[in-house]
Amino acid sequence: MEALRRMILEKGKGIGNDIVKVDMFLNHRIDTALLFQMGEAWADEFRNEKPETVLTVEASGIAMAVAAAHALGDIPVVFAKKSATVVQNDDIVQAPVYSFTHKTQNMIRIEKRYLPEGTRVLIIDDFLADGQAVHGLMSLCEQQKAVVVGVGIAVEKGFQPGGKALREAGVHLKSLAVVEGIENGNIVLRPDDN
Amino acid sequence: MEALRRMILEKGKGIGNDIVKVDMFLNHRIDTALLFQMGEAWADEFRNEKPETVLTVEASGIAMAVAAAHALGDIPVVFAKKSATVVQNDDIVQAPVYSFTHKTQNMIRIEKRYLPEGTRVLIIDDFLADGQAVHGLMSLCEQQKAVVVGVGIAVEKGFQPGGKALREAGVHLKSLAVVEGIENGNIVLRPDDN
Repeated sequence: MEALRRMILEKGKGIGNDIVKVDMFLNHRIDTALLFQMGEAWADEFRNEKPETVLTVEASGIAMAVAAAHALGDIPVVFAKKSATVVQNDDIVQAPVYSFTHKTQNMIRIEKRYLPEGTRVLIIDDFLADGQAVHGLMSLCEQQKAVVVGVGIAVEKGFQPGGKALREAGVHLKSLAVVEGIENGNIVLRPDDN
Repeated sequence: MEALRRMILEKGKGIGNDIVKVDMFLNHRIDTALLFQMGEAWADEFRNEKPETVLTVEASGIAMAVAAAHALGDIPVVFAKKSATVVQNDDIVQAPVYSFTHKTQNMIRIEKRYLPEGTRVLIIDDFLADGQAVHGLMSLCEQQKAVVVGVGIAVEKGFQPGGKALREAGVHLKSLAVVEGIENGNIVLRPDDN
C-alpha cells in the first residue's frame, strides 16, 4: 500500500537488524488519515470473503481493527486481552502467545460469546514477524469453530518466517507493507506485490 | 447521547453497587456503528475548542479516541502506555494512575515528542469514575505544557467523584452517558443533560 510504504520510508526507523520502529504514525502516535486509508485497503482486499467480525489483540491492533471494520460497513470488532496467567473460566477461550522479543509467554483470551461458532473472522494486527500473535488469534477461532477468512497485517517483517508460513498454509494474507531488512538503519521494503 | 444510553439499558449489566459492564459493545466487543456515532457526538461537542490531538490511554480508550479523531477531521491520536514501573528516560513523560478497583498504582507514559508544547489536546476515555486516569493524562499534558481543551468520556459513574471534581475545576467535560447508580442489577442513567 503506497501511502503506508511512503510513511515507513519517510518516518520509520530501523534499529539493529530487526526492529522496525513506526511509533510515530502507527502504534503510539496514530496518523488517523493514514489509518483509515489502511482500513480501506484491507476492506478492498477482504470484502469478497464476507467477514462478519474483525478480531485483533490489544493494544496496538485495536485502532487498525476499528479502521478495517469501519471500511467493511461497521462490522463489530473483538479484541483479545493479554494476561500473564492462565485463568479457569468456562466463559472464556484462551491461547498462548510466545514473544521472541521479550522471551516470555503470555495468554490471550476472549469471552466465548463474542465469537460464536461459524462467525467469519478477519484477523487484523499491526506486525507480523514470527506469527505467534496471529497463531494465537487463529487458535481462539479454531477453538470456537469460527472461520478465519483472512489475515490483514500493517507491517510484515519479510525476513522472519511468519508470513511465509501463513501463505504456504493457504491463509489469505495481506500485508500492507513488507520489510525485507534493515541496512545501516535504513528500512528496505519489498516491492508492493505482497 | 441517546444511542449509547439505549445500548447501555438494553445490553449493559450492573453488578453489585458499582460495576457497569459494557464489554459487549464498548470495550471487548466493539459495536463499530455506535462507536463512530460516539465519535461524532464528541466532535460536535468539542469542535469549537479546536483540538489538534486526541490523547487516551491503552487499551480500551483507543477505539474511542480513533472515532473522535476521525470525526474531527482525522487529527492524530496519541495513546499513553501503561506500565507497572517508573522508567528513567529523558525522552518520555510519565504520571502515576492509582486504580481503586485493583488497589494498585501504575504509571502511564508517552514519548515527549508526540505531545509538543502548546498542543491543544482532547482527552478521550471509556470510563470516568474516580478520575484517576483522566488526572494522569492531564498531568502528562501539564508536564508537556500542552493545553487540555476538553475531556470526552463514554460512561461516567455519576455516583463517584471524578466528574463532579472536573466540572468544578472548570474542565470542559462531556460524558455521553452518566450512570446514577445500580439498583438490583439494573443500571440507572441520569437524564441526558450531562
